[in-house]
Amino acid sequence: MRILFAYPGAERLADMLANHSRCERGALNLHRFPDGESLIQIQSDIKSHEIAILCSLDRPDDKAVPLMFFAQTAKEFGAKSVTLIAPYLGYMRQDKRFHEGEAVTSAIFASFLSENFDSLITVDPHLHRYKNLNELYTIPTKTVHASGAIADWIGENIKNPVLIGPDEESDQWVSKVAQKAEAPYAVLQKTRRGDTQVEISVPEIDKYKDHTPVLVDDIISTARTMIETVKRLKRAGMNPPVCIGVHALFAGDAFEALKQSGAGRVVSCNTVAHETNAIDVSGLLAAAWKG
Amino acid sequence: MRILFAYPGAERLADMLANHSRCERGALNLHRFPDGESLIQIQSDIKSHEIAILCSLDRPDDKAVPLMFFAQTAKEFGAKSVTLIAPYLGYMRQDKRFHEGEAVTSAIFASFLSENFDSLITVDPHLHRYKNLNELYTIPTKTVHASGAIADWIGENIKNPVLIGPDEESDQWVSKVAQKAEAPYAVLQKTRRGDTQVEISVPEIDKYKDHTPVLVDDIISTARTMIETVKRLKRAGMNPPVCIGVHALFAGDAFEALKQSGAGRVVSCNTVAHETNAIDVSGLLAAAWKG
Repeated sequence: MRILFAYPGAERLADMLANHSRCERGALNLHRFPDGESLIQIQSDIKSHEIAILCSLDRPDDKAVPLMFFAQTAKEFGAKSVTLIAPYLGYMRQDKRFHEGEAVTSAIFASFLSENFDSLITVDPHLHRYKNLNELYTIPTKTVHASGAIADWIGENIKNPVLIGPDEESDQWVSKVAQKAEAPYAVLQKTRRGDTQVEISVPEIDKYKDHTPVLVDDIISTARTMIETVKRLKRAGMNPPVCIGVHALFAGDAFEALKQSGAGRVVSCNTVAHETNAIDVSGLLAAAWKG
Repeated sequence: MRILFAYPGAERLADMLANHSRCERGALNLHRFPDGESLIQIQSDIKSHEIAILCSLDRPDDKAVPLMFFAQTAKEFGAKSVTLIAPYLGYMRQDKRFHEGEAVTSAIFASFLSENFDSLITVDPHLHRYKNLNELYTIPTKTVHASGAIADWIGENIKNPVLIGPDEESDQWVSKVAQKAEAPYAVLQKTRRGDTQVEISVPEIDKYKDHTPVLVDDIISTARTMIETVKRLKRAGMNPPVCIGVHALFAGDAFEALKQSGAGRVVSCNTVAHETNAIDVSGLLAAAWKG
């Protein structure tokens, strides 16, 4: 039997995933002691079963220790295999040593997960210098692609779309989605200055003035890139763009800032729980876990 | 050469430790990205050096990932050895499975540290069912005892003391300190009801009414045990007790509550940074790292 556990906060998505799949929902308790230590309690019988825990790895530092407790304890209790279903996979952006002395956290974090879990399922990890997860993970990994679901959503909700990728890293994204949505696309140029400042160069987009621009990116974190793009498109006389992110991280006041920048509708996949979640990936995750 | 790094917050104690020891102070930066991920940067040349990082493991979950980044990156840069100096060692209290399905977090957390570090130095770990750290850790460990420093402090600051241990777990503590301080002692009986409720039974302490009671415990976390003891001693007509904890965790409003309970002076070792720190262990830590 397969049993699916939800890390606290992921219960709703876990229920949806289980509805798509022939698996049981397991019961798990995470207790936080007053002194800041945590305790995991696995309340279902897992001996000889294939189990998975659903836990999106946004804000990952606080989740790593409880996840390790879960995985190690599950093995102790005789689980046949322990899969991590992380709809958003953290620590993918520090994919090289950008400055002397820095940790390459992508590699270290991947080793940590590889040591604790038997396999990993994720949705559209941020691959830039790494071409695929096997360069990082020693365990089997499966990547679910949201581009089809996003293209479907665009097809059903947006008239006369033109897809816009905020930067060259988003090219892999935007081109795929555009192709599936049978829509034209353009990718802009980005120069990053520190954590929160970004400059965008505008290509020739005059010919799409009657279209609805649709910005697609994999991660919306500080949203600075998207906000700058929205402003540029506005200044260029485009319609208010629909903003789509696969992973709605929205650090700090990023969501408010994006809404106030002149963006049209803001939409995301439900890989990171957020009020913008409109595109459901639970069926795709269920299919990936089935094998 | 030996190089000592301080986890953010431990800089002061690291400077004091370095003053007792022939070692360099290393430079380390911990950056927190807006999305909640962290990045460690080791700014000193550590190749072929014996290095240590000073990091107290109170509120440990948030520190575990950056510590792992530090240790792995230090090895990558060719450090000869990487020692963790954790004046307070977390995850020592879940030393068995108290309820079915629970993780034995003490063992899992110890394995995690053992995989990342080459050796461990700590001050008076909370040993109850484990008799020493070698039952948990596969790396060499050194335990520094604060009892001598506490006894010295009592001798210099308290007239006519009687030492009181709040419960049987504190016996190891109180008896040692009492012996070194050449003072009488008594140990009370504790019954714990959940995380924050504790009941105390009072022994015959009538003969110490002219003494200053000194409560000594290893960890003050919720402080419920100490508060109940203070109230009992007060009701029994004792003088306001001096409260000494090795490790001043003080979860939530615990410190305020302890002060308001009728306690006299509240004092701790500087293993966890807190305004009650009055007993310095930096010299003891320096001696332990020297070998």
